[in-house]
Amino acid sequence: MLEKLKREVLEANLELPKAGLVTFTWGNVSGIDRNTNLVVIKPSGVDYEKLQVEDLVVVDLAGNIVEGTLRPSSDTPTHCALYRAFSEIGGIVHTHSPWATSWAQAGKRIPALGTTHADYFYGEIPCTRKLTGEETNRAYELETGNVIIETIVKESIDPIAMPGILVKNHAPFCWGKSPSQAVHNAVVLEEVAKMALHTLQLNPKAEWIDQFLLDKHYLRKHGANAYYGQKNG
Amino acid sequence: MLEKLKREVLEANLELPKAGLVTFTWGNVSGIDRNTNLVVIKPSGVDYEKLQVEDLVVVDLAGNIVEGTLRPSSDTPTHCALYRAFSEIGGIVHTHSPWATSWAQAGKRIPALGTTHADYFYGEIPCTRKLTGEETNRAYELETGNVIIETIVKESIDPIAMPGILVKNHAPFCWGKSPSQAVHNAVVLEEVAKMALHTLQLNPKAEWIDQFLLDKHYLRKHGANAYYGQKNG
Amino acid sequence: MLEKLKREVLEANLELPKAGLVTFTWGNVSGIDRNTNLVVIKPSGVDYEKLQVEDLVVVDLAGNIVEGTLRPSSDTPTHCALYRAFSEIGGIVHTHSPWATSWAQAGKRIPALGTTHADYFYGEIPCTRKLTGEETNRAYELETGNVIIETIVKESIDPIAMPGILVKNHAPFCWGKSPSQAVHNAVVLEEVAKMALHTLQLNPKAEWIDQFLLDKHYLRKHGANAYYGQKNG
Amino acid sequence: MLEKLKREVLEANLELPKAGLVTFTWGNVSGIDRNTNLVVIKPSGVDYEKLQVEDLVVVDLAGNIVEGTLRPSSDTPTHCALYRAFSEIGGIVHTHSPWATSWAQAGKRIPALGTTHADYFYGEIPCTRKLTGEETNRAYELETGNVIIETIVKESIDPIAMPGILVKNHAPFCWGKSPSQAVHNAVVLEEVAKMALHTLQLNPKAEWIDQFLLDKHYLRKHGANAYYGQKNG
Repeated sequence: MLEKLKREVLEANLELPKAGLVTFTWGNVSGIDRNTNLVVIKPSGVDYEKLQVEDLVVVDLAGNIVEGTLRPSSDTPTHCALYRAFSEIGGIVHTHSPWATSWAQAGKRIPALGTTHADYFYGEIPCTRKLTGEETNRAYELETGNVIIETIVKESIDPIAMPGILVKNHAPFCWGKSPSQAVHNAVVLEEVAKMALHTLQLNPKAEWIDQFLLDKHYLRKHGANAYYGQKNG
Repeated sequence: MLEKLKREVLEANLELPKAGLVTFTWGNVSGIDRNTNLVVIKPSGVDYEKLQVEDLVVVDLAGNIVEGTLRPSSDTPTHCALYRAFSEIGGIVHTHSPWATSWAQAGKRIPALGTTHADYFYGEIPCTRKLTGEETNRAYELETGNVIIETIVKESIDPIAMPGILVKNHAPFCWGKSPSQAVHNAVVLEEVAKMALHTLQLNPKAEWIDQFLLDKHYLRKHGANAYYGQKNG
Repeated sequence: MLEKLKREVLEANLELPKAGLVTFTWGNVSGIDRNTNLVVIKPSGVDYEKLQVEDLVVVDLAGNIVEGTLRPSSDTPTHCALYRAFSEIGGIVHTHSPWATSWAQAGKRIPALGTTHADYFYGEIPCTRKLTGEETNRAYELETGNVIIETIVKESIDPIAMPGILVKNHAPFCWGKSPSQAVHNAVVLEEVAKMALHTLQLNPKAEWIDQFLLDKHYLRKHGANAYYGQKNG
Repeated sequence: MLEKLKREVLEANLELPKAGLVTFTWGNVSGIDRNTNLVVIKPSGVDYEKLQVEDLVVVDLAGNIVEGTLRPSSDTPTHCALYRAFSEIGGIVHTHSPWATSWAQAGKRIPALGTTHADYFYGEIPCTRKLTGEETNRAYELETGNVIIETIVKESIDPIAMPGILVKNHAPFCWGKSPSQAVHNAVVLEEVAKMALHTLQLNPKAEWIDQFLLDKHYLRKHGANAYYGQKNG
């Protein structure tokens, strides 16, 4: 079942330690098959070194296990909520990558300070509000998804043009059209988070990138008139 | 004697350079067998690259050598003091890992700023007072253990829920139910220490994680109702 | 065609990930053959791991493709503008290396704080003004070259003695007499950018290096009376 | 000639890139044979990857080449001056290691903030004054040695108990009883420099280590009553 997607999800998970985004098992990637609305996700607390295709868990959009002998990631309800809300996305990744997590812990949005940011994130990277005690106690992982959706919707954000968010006092979630693209965006987020901190240390009044330069860089990589990379790439 | 524990202690020691926690020989891990109350500990000043099972030293809880031809770690009296005081712990690690040591040198407790912290450390990570001149000169390593115990006891801390501490102007000590768990906690402490510094640089008034979120994360990983990871994992 | 130069450009491109200057495909190196005025440059968006000599693109100084089946780097017009303006240079490199990019995002010049800087960069490393919206929309990559040239010319800078610049809100460009020298300078810029940030954190009023020490270090490595290295080296 | 010392000097030089202390060729180690007063030193500007025993240069204490076909390090007059002034030292290392260099550029001494520092450096690590223009122009490398000696002598520092110094606007020099010990001290200096910066960022008023703790740690590793490590180690 879903063999191709499983291999993609496995490879995307294995990219996390290679890219230095995770310590121990602190991260997970999922992918969705939009025909069947089935989600393939990493099992909870399994070492990346030992992770095999057959360890991956298949769940439906309500989070019910459809295939697999291991428990799915404890963050599965968050992933499912995002897939239900944003039909454009095909992969989701959660890590505690240290630079992005520092911004999440600081409760601050990451301003668009340069073209590296603009190449992937079309504007300021948002940060959610804190969860309430009631939300946390009732259905923590589901409500984590809900507070992400609330932020994206309230600010009229296009989730494809803004493929990541910081969850306050917690850590980032990223996404993309595929599991590998989600991980790609998580790597960029970490790099952008690191540079933004150092930029503000050098100049607390650093100017944001102009809207026209943000447009230029984002649109030379994305959309109908993109001209970065190869035509088939 | 204690062959299984020795292998565990050897492996836990070898994890330290792999995890980037030590420079040269600046660290040591021990483990205790609670049936015999014998402690297996790294010899003093021996390179990790050359460390063998037969180099490990066995001492009793008073620090007397029971087996081994090498001198035990100079920090052995600290380890023994902690084992005597806290019967719940089975392994101890001491390093000068740079981020945690920077907090120890600053003489500041590490606030619980996010869920990464909450997953392992149930609250603010304490920092001891300074040793007095008399304590330092009389029995330095023993008194290092005593000032750790004093801090833990005075603040009514459960050493299993708070598996590490900063010794002021010195460096961290961590512990756990086993030597490998102690090292695991030392890795987390270093990561948490790094992120807390960067968080406060981004926002000196960063809000602590709410108690209900601290509870949620700590308890989803620990205790009777934990649901992170696999049932047998 | 230009086989030797192509190999040099390939090797110089492959140095970028080895030196830790690039994430993904965020960087490109070119070299020019001054006899034919042909430029060899990396193709756009191709992974360094897969990059082969035959993937390199040959363009003339107007940016027209002379040889190659792939699209040249989207930054080709910037490279060509610099080659047209500065006949002394033989190689150009662009990266988003994180420390130098943080200075570019901060919109600040890198002061000459020590001899490491002075060994390669004869004075403060400049930072361009921002591009206007009109420049950005009309011919972004060409105007990026133009704003670099404007800065160099206006400040009467010798591009060989100052082999790099920060483009505001964007990232660094470096150059040299050859592609490999350009990459060498990019590595130094990154190191110097990192140390300058930490120096200013330690001492916001850190004194610049004296002019006589700047002269001494730059001239012991460069020019007729250089005495660093081997005579044939 | 001096084959054993040459091998020691070669190995000590090769430790520099392994320990992450050098970029390119920015560093050099020498050793002295006190019987003949001959110094073995790295040749100038030679890649560490290619460095062979036969590339090393032998000079006398006046810096005259006694053996070798390559130019010695341009810093040879600094090394010779230090060997002439301090008969206790047997090896010297110079690097531009980034954390220590940041302190040198800041023109600030590194305070003794913790036991890691105290284990190797018996007090605050000094920083020289700036060289004058006349010193720089007349005999730069010799005067670099002289300003180090001036600082050590004026402050009545024991060079064995304080095996390193920062040269203002330049970088660190370290030394020891042997070339390998000099490199060992350079590694510690870099680690201590990094932690001291982060400590002061966490707490600008961080308290220095007490004199009795400085004594305790330095003397448990050094001198007649040392008890760290193995008796023969």
